[in-house]
Amino acid sequence: MQSSPLLESLIEHLRCLPGVGPKSAQRMAYHLLQRDRSGGMNLARALTDAMSKIGHCSHCRDFTEEETCNICNNPRRQNSGLLCVVEMPADIQAIEQTGQFSGRYFVLMGHLSPLDGIGPKEIGLDLLQQRLQNEAFSEVILATNPTIEGDATANYIAEICLQQGIKVSRIAHGIPVGGELEMVDGTTLTHSFLGRRELG
Amino acid sequence: MQSSPLLESLIEHLRCLPGVGPKSAQRMAYHLLQRDRSGGMNLARALTDAMSKIGHCSHCRDFTEEETCNICNNPRRQNSGLLCVVEMPADIQAIEQTGQFSGRYFVLMGHLSPLDGIGPKEIGLDLLQQRLQNEAFSEVILATNPTIEGDATANYIAEICLQQGIKVSRIAHGIPVGGELEMVDGTTLTHSFLGRRELG
Ligand SMILES: [Zn+2]
Ligand SMILES: [Zn+2]
Repeated sequence: MQSSPLLESLIEHLRCLPGVGPKSAQRMAYHLLQRDRSGGMNLARALTDAMSKIGHCSHCRDFTEEETCNICNNPRRQNSGLLCVVEMPADIQAIEQTGQFSGRYFVLMGHLSPLDGIGPKEIGLDLLQQRLQNEAFSEVILATNPTIEGDATANYIAEICLQQGIKVSRIAHGIPVGGELEMVDGTTLTHSFLGRRELG
Repeated sequence: MQSSPLLESLIEHLRCLPGVGPKSAQRMAYHLLQRDRSGGMNLARALTDAMSKIGHCSHCRDFTEEETCNICNNPRRQNSGLLCVVEMPADIQAIEQTGQFSGRYFVLMGHLSPLDGIGPKEIGLDLLQQRLQNEAFSEVILATNPTIEGDATANYIAEICLQQGIKVSRIAHGIPVGGELEMVDGTTLTHSFLGRRELG
């Protein structure tokens, strides 16, 4: 029993953060109360703003609070002609940190998973197909995770590209099979971009 | 560069939590945005309430949003005649989890540290002295940390108790020297209570 219901509630709600168990939630709550109340208030405001105002870019589906994101709006990136397809927004971060890619992105927000009712529409492939028709991409790079689902999703999208006569490649080198793109170090990811192979 | 300034700000502010580096802050932010926005909103509310409404009990200085805390208000604990002095609110949690102590507490919110300007008044010893005069305690148990500062603080409070003719003891057994009370397992802490020795 805590001395304060509000403290109890804070500890409980901190556990919605990944990797935070009961003991570290308690340590976080005490730390904020004892040493950093203004930090706690600022975090509350940042959370409220982010949860309520961040939506998805209407071009690439990445997180943004605007209609379109910074990357889609960048003229240099618009001119590159490259489109990289990833599963999650965090994957964009990982790729950006390698500094090897200067094109634009498309975020599936997942992968095909028919058993869970996640088909082409749920991962935005209607929007992707529109973009492939309307914009002149020189190459589509498929950077979904090297898992069974990620590979199946990449193959499905490769078919769409080939039907439209667009060059399509799959990043390949160095990513451990079954691994998550987001967790891979920058060097491995750079190699995996350089060693990409054309499909079809 | 993140695609969204609000996302960037959330990641930055998550780092005010102890043990959260740039990589785990990013993982937390993406997790909330992708999978648990209502959890994020609830956490924001719990943070705001806790940071703005939780103060200190006017009897024991533990955290509470009321004038006095649940433990001080408990008649069974009022009748026990025991008072346990600890450095921090988290220490109360650790002691409560042993189930070995049924008295009341006094929280110093630190320890004596003359070089940092933390004297008897800063750790509430004027309030403690008032309570020792006004309430009939049968024993004061000093459960400050077994560090140089914690020992010095315990010795200082022991003097006050002895001057007023109140039995005073120091928990001793099993706590590793230089350790933090909050981090000790329940069994060790139980032994340290049972093996306490009277001072003076
Ligand atoms: Zn975009
Ligand atoms: Zn109290």
